[in-house]
Amino acid sequence: MHAQLDLDTIRSVLIRQEETLIFALVERAQFKVNARIYQRGGMPIPNFAGSFVEYLLHGTEALHATVRRYTSPDEHPFFEQLPAPILPALPAPSPIAATTVNINARIRQVYEQHIIPAVCAAGDDEQYGSSAVCDVACLQALSKRIHYGKFVAESKYCRQPAAFAPLLRAGDAAGVLALITDAAVEARLLRRVERKAATYGQEIDADGPTAAYKIPPRLIADMYRDWIMPLTKDVEVAYLLERQHAPVSA
Amino acid sequence: MHAQLDLDTIRSVLIRQEETLIFALVERAQFKVNARIYQRGGMPIPNFAGSFVEYLLHGTEALHATVRRYTSPDEHPFFEQLPAPILPALPAPSPIAATTVNINARIRQVYEQHIIPAVCAAGDDEQYGSSAVCDVACLQALSKRIHYGKFVAESKYCRQPAAFAPLLRAGDAAGVLALITDAAVEARLLRRVERKAATYGQEIDADGPTAAYKIPPRLIADMYRDWIMPLTKDVEVAYLLERQHAPVSA
Repeated sequence: MHAQLDLDTIRSVLIRQEETLIFALVERAQFKVNARIYQRGGMPIPNFAGSFVEYLLHGTEALHATVRRYTSPDEHPFFEQLPAPILPALPAPSPIAATTVNINARIRQVYEQHIIPAVCAAGDDEQYGSSAVCDVACLQALSKRIHYGKFVAESKYCRQPAAFAPLLRAGDAAGVLALITDAAVEARLLRRVERKAATYGQEIDADGPTAAYKIPPRLIADMYRDWIMPLTKDVEVAYLLERQHAPVSA
Repeated sequence: MHAQLDLDTIRSVLIRQEETLIFALVERAQFKVNARIYQRGGMPIPNFAGSFVEYLLHGTEALHATVRRYTSPDEHPFFEQLPAPILPALPAPSPIAATTVNINARIRQVYEQHIIPAVCAAGDDEQYGSSAVCDVACLQALSKRIHYGKFVAESKYCRQPAAFAPLLRAGDAAGVLALITDAAVEARLLRRVERKAATYGQEIDADGPTAAYKIPPRLIADMYRDWIMPLTKDVEVAYLLERQHAPVSA
């Protein structure tokens, strides 16, 4: 088994991604919802059909694509038809199968419709550029975290291929979902995330921590329970079902 | 006096920028120094004469310039000759004078030569893209924080113009520096920054905080003492000396 699929490695990557995501959300929570940055035509962008956030996300992805961000198996773009890399390809083989699974459209929908209204104060403070720059960071962190489900799934599969084989052959998505679900691990993750949100989101002055939070910690845990964990498991199931026809290269 | 120059407003902006900077540095500290991303010719980028970080920073600034980031008085680009904004100009008058003060070249030098080797483990982990994306966020946060000295200086000047007038007329930089320096405020800032670094940089598991830090808290306070505070005061002095000849528009 590829070293990147080792359980301790996967666990440490997932845990470290929690900080990245919490930091990004705390940054975004400085600004109000600013609904018009998510609306097509909400801001007058010449020669671009999407929203302000789509404009900035697309531009960022176009730039990052030139330095081969999306040739990495743990990165998934929100946009198609990005520029080719200007750097030579990396020789590293991917530890996961090359599938078509990419749920970024759903991730962006969940982010804009559910996460932003929960994390940010209602209203408009005209901080459109700052908000959208934070949105790009949040969306990239969410996408990376959720699509990391492919690594999780490959690792789970490699540990007990015989248990998965009949479910995959039968296309039994509910059976696969049951097999990849570990309630004890999920409960521990939610506790850890709430602790982190309480620590990293607290206001601090020269005398130490205060009782104020930039985002209520419970809200971050709820976001994991209601969105991030289910979407990750959707990626795991979709990946495994497609995997049968797209074997791992490494 | 413009509302943005109110002391409480300035204080809260500076305090909030500490989180942004600490979060960005904690993110960068995941990766090793990766010295080649700062070297011209360190990576083979076609048709670009600078380093890998310069390439990504320039591309990011070019994108952000199109959504008028650098028309805001609290934003300063690292590169010249960026594209014009595609959005209409904002009508808001600037609370500070239009000076030419921009010390980003020095900020980048300090960041690459002093801050990165302090914050990151020595060596090369090949995480060039991820490191450089973090560098862009760190450099933007540092630049914003340090150039916010212009707002600080304008506010200090407005509170006692008669005290500044003779020093400014005489071009007495040392006298201006002495007048803007408040040792008690600086000591409180260093205490607060160390508290924040201790909180936001600590490792946390499901049982709560552990004794481990992603960056030693003392190191963040040292960075403020040795670099951020002196550079901010340099901006304040340079701004005030130039300000006499470039009056505030608002």
